[in-house]
Amino acid sequence: MKLDHIGIAVHSIEKALRSYQVAMGLEMEAAVNVEEQKVKVAMLPVGESRIELLEATDPTSPICRFLAKRGEGVHHICFKVQDLDRKLAAFRKAGIQILPDADGTGYQGRRIAFLHPRSTHGVLIELVEE
Amino acid sequence: MKLDHIGIAVHSIEKALRSYQVAMGLEMEAAVNVEEQKVKVAMLPVGESRIELLEATDPTSPICRFLAKRGEGVHHICFKVQDLDRKLAAFRKAGIQILPDADGTGYQGRRIAFLHPRSTHGVLIELVEE
Repeated sequence: MKLDHIGIAVHSIEKALRSYQVAMGLEMEAAVNVEEQKVKVAMLPVGESRIELLEATDPTSPICRFLAKRGEGVHHICFKVQDLDRKLAAFRKAGIQILPDADGTGYQGRRIAFLHPRSTHGVLIELVEE
Repeated sequence: MKLDHIGIAVHSIEKALRSYQVAMGLEMEAAVNVEEQKVKVAMLPVGESRIELLEATDPTSPICRFLAKRGEGVHHICFKVQDLDRKLAAFRKAGIQILPDADGTGYQGRRIAFLHPRSTHGVLIELVEE
C-alpha cells in the first residue's frame, strides 16, 4: 500500500487554495467535480502523495454533514492498492469493517472503497485501486 | 516538501496495533517515548510515508486534550522540509500563523514546528526538518 492522498473538508476550495496553493506554495494538479460523491475536488501534489481539498456540491454530500459536525479539517486518508477486491477480502477476514455503500467511483473514475472508522480508531480510510 | 507522516491519536497503541499492524498488515518501524511531547509513538511505514500512532503518557499531554474533545482520529499531518527556519520565515511572510510554543524536538530528536489550524483550514500541520 502507498499513501495516495489526504482528504481535507473545506467550506470553499477557492479560499482554502489561498492557504495551500498561494501561501504554502503547493502546486494544483486539477480541480474537478466527482458527481457520484457530490464533491468538488482540488488535488495538490506533495512529494509522491497529494492533498485533496473537498468542497460539497450538494447539501446531501457527506462533506456537508462532516463540516456541520466537525468543522473544516482532515476528512479521510487514502491508501492506493493494486487489487482492491483481494485487499477488501483480506481486511474483512481480519475483522475490519467495510462501509456498505462504499464501493464506488472516485476521482478520475478510479474504483474506491472505505473502511469503517470504528475498525480503524476513528480514521475514515479510503482505498483506491491503482 | 514531502509527506513525512500522519499522526493518529489513540487511547491505546497496543489496541490500535491490532488494527493497523495485525489486521491491515502494516509493519511497525519503532515504538518510542517522545518525552518533550508527552507521547508514546508507534511508526508504521506506508510506502514513502508513515502512520504515527500517538498515545498520551501524561494527563497534560496535548493528545489527552484532543481525545477528550474529538475522540480517536487524525491529530495532525507532517511535512518534511529541508530548511525549517527558511520555510517558517516564508510561511510567516505569506500570512500563515505558526504555533508559538511549537518549535521543539520530536521523534528521533528532529526539529519540528506546527502551523496553526486557523491558517490551514482546520488541519494541524507539523513541519519536521530532514
